[in-house]
Amino acid sequence: MKTISFLSDYGLDDEFVGVCHAVMARIAPGSRLIDLTHGVPRHAVRRGALILRNALPYVEPGVHLAVVDPEVGGERRAVALRVAQDNRLLVGPDNGLLALAAQRFGGVVEAVDIGLSAFRLEPVASTFHGRDIFAPVAARLAAGAELLEAGEPIDGAELCALELPRPRIENGEVVAHAISVDRYGNVALDVDHADLIESGLRLGRAVELDVGGRRLQAHYAKTFADVEPDEPLVYEDAWRTLALAVNRGSAAEALGLSADDELRIRPA
Amino acid sequence: MKTISFLSDYGLDDEFVGVCHAVMARIAPGSRLIDLTHGVPRHAVRRGALILRNALPYVEPGVHLAVVDPEVGGERRAVALRVAQDNRLLVGPDNGLLALAAQRFGGVVEAVDIGLSAFRLEPVASTFHGRDIFAPVAARLAAGAELLEAGEPIDGAELCALELPRPRIENGEVVAHAISVDRYGNVALDVDHADLIESGLRLGRAVELDVGGRRLQAHYAKTFADVEPDEPLVYEDAWRTLALAVNRGSAAEALGLSADDELRIRPA
Amino acid sequence: MKTISFLSDYGLDDEFVGVCHAVMARIAPGSRLIDLTHGVPRHAVRRGALILRNALPYVEPGVHLAVVDPEVGGERRAVALRVAQDNRLLVGPDNGLLALAAQRFGGVVEAVDIGLSAFRLEPVASTFHGRDIFAPVAARLAAGAELLEAGEPIDGAELCALELPRPRIENGEVVAHAISVDRYGNVALDVDHADLIESGLRLGRAVELDVGGRRLQAHYAKTFADVEPDEPLVYEDAWRTLALAVNRGSAAEALGLSADDELRIRPA
Repeated sequence: MKTISFLSDYGLDDEFVGVCHAVMARIAPGSRLIDLTHGVPRHAVRRGALILRNALPYVEPGVHLAVVDPEVGGERRAVALRVAQDNRLLVGPDNGLLALAAQRFGGVVEAVDIGLSAFRLEPVASTFHGRDIFAPVAARLAAGAELLEAGEPIDGAELCALELPRPRIENGEVVAHAISVDRYGNVALDVDHADLIESGLRLGRAVELDVGGRRLQAHYAKTFADVEPDEPLVYEDAWRTLALAVNRGSAAEALGLSADDELRIRPA
Repeated sequence: MKTISFLSDYGLDDEFVGVCHAVMARIAPGSRLIDLTHGVPRHAVRRGALILRNALPYVEPGVHLAVVDPEVGGERRAVALRVAQDNRLLVGPDNGLLALAAQRFGGVVEAVDIGLSAFRLEPVASTFHGRDIFAPVAARLAAGAELLEAGEPIDGAELCALELPRPRIENGEVVAHAISVDRYGNVALDVDHADLIESGLRLGRAVELDVGGRRLQAHYAKTFADVEPDEPLVYEDAWRTLALAVNRGSAAEALGLSADDELRIRPA
Repeated sequence: MKTISFLSDYGLDDEFVGVCHAVMARIAPGSRLIDLTHGVPRHAVRRGALILRNALPYVEPGVHLAVVDPEVGGERRAVALRVAQDNRLLVGPDNGLLALAAQRFGGVVEAVDIGLSAFRLEPVASTFHGRDIFAPVAARLAAGAELLEAGEPIDGAELCALELPRPRIENGEVVAHAISVDRYGNVALDVDHADLIESGLRLGRAVELDVGGRRLQAHYAKTFADVEPDEPLVYEDAWRTLALAVNRGSAAEALGLSADDELRIRPA
């Protein structure tokens, strides 16, 4: 029995996640189920894709179910994929949600359309493919079914891609974008460890942030407690992505930042 | 070992759910525990009863624990029931919370009052029967105890019932009531698939909603993406209940609807 | 394999908890994991410490992981402890979070600094020790590793303590403090069963509350339903701590109370 991981924007206030668990437990009773999170903001496909890419290297290779699916029941395809590394299988809507994780593990080597899968529960509700298509397919794969039994083969090259903002270096400063905000108000940027190295830009210990014309000084530090309470810092977060925080406070609030906002970072 | 499912209004911010899990894991270590949801709004017995009725058909038959219990420690009984189908056991307060699920599985065939159960944890806290009565009884039943060992036999016919609003057909329109709102703002009505068929009323693809005198046009569609963003739709939800949604938006907000509100639907 | 319990202030909106689960499932796949709660308010070390102390007696002895860690990556130590009773192991930051639970089980008998543990995941992110230090150490201990393999021995007597407010008896009244508020708005005070007995003070069935000079009458009752809806009550909660509630309402809101506020209770 393979491990199943599960990510969604279902939230925990309703029974959606619980019912998917129940469906999978019946089909693959011996399988371990790990909830990555169900708190992806509603319909935030890109946020889900980023979390999936970041989290999966920590998850035992197995079946990785993800559902953030604003077009459920519409024309988007439902898919299951095998990636090049670790024999990992990804299951979810073909709307870009799986794209970054697939890329992270060497790309897609086999893909099937599971919209009419023999494994689905009948009747399929047009608004809850998590329960009727994705969960049963994931569980059958975890229980040992072959990918090709789960649906109709499709060309992996035709799967939906996902565009991310990209940072750029201009006049000795990084022009970055906020890509996500966590519960602490920490803001992850679209600048990863490799981007910084490649840029050749050396941020010292003191940096200047420019957020929509508003300038403020910040420390480039390793962790929150390196600066005084309520002071801002720039740091490499746990996914080796550049991020902004305020010690004991919320950078998103203090700086008025939300996803996709542009900001500039330069040595002070 | 039987599967245990667990639904409550405890929320996840406090330790209530975690402590109940801990209690059950000690008594029935080999049992699988499925959280249906703990996000039932506080004291919303009817909402809990509806979720339980809808979700249980997807859950492996076993022990089904439910706690939404505004009268905890008061005069309401604590009960465990066996229903006619699948040998399912329900455990919870006798306040109507279990009534719809019991009915869905053929009615109650055996019932015990577990208020003084030999399985309870001593001392019983008057305000946390989840931990001290319901969870230990559910776990002992999952571990193989007989229902009659769990408490004193009572007459299933005397159990608390639950009144639901009922829709009616008047002058060629459905007079329905909102019965629940999910995290997406989708509003479930008290009209199920069978009600619609029986009514003989044929809603076409275009319908008119009348919410407290305010009229608006909507599509009768299969899924959210069948209409444009921000447009309302009427559809059969995943439990085959008539429901209202706004594609990418919140029907509850857009229409100002909350539980028990009346509205009218007619062919446009 | 030992049971692992897990408490944190990570919340469930992000992937922090899910990733820690994934890390532990890889290292100790046969271990049962019980989430006590991840809803501790951000950085609320004392609230986390109280929950841990109250909940652990209900949890199978094993490895008890707790992370509320405002100083993550700073100078506070990361530790693993063995307590005197039940052979329980506690893992977390040395900031007082583990102190009350350790005391509850007879005090610390063995302690190691796990900041440079051989069990940690490399590279260690300065802002996510939950993933890189605490979870892997907890899982290795659950899988059978000895405490001394997990880090460098330290003196248990040097571990961080935790100060709690203490109630006092003055002129025949209890001067108490709010120490926590749950999702229902029930307010736990710093007065436990033993404090009341020792005080010799006999609260009758009718008491008077004095909250910042505002006086109101309340019942000293056993459970919420003993008083009318919207009426306040004083009661011994499920942890045998004196608490305030409003039947079907919120005592915290009705009385304007939050953590650390002082109030007085006297016989009416």
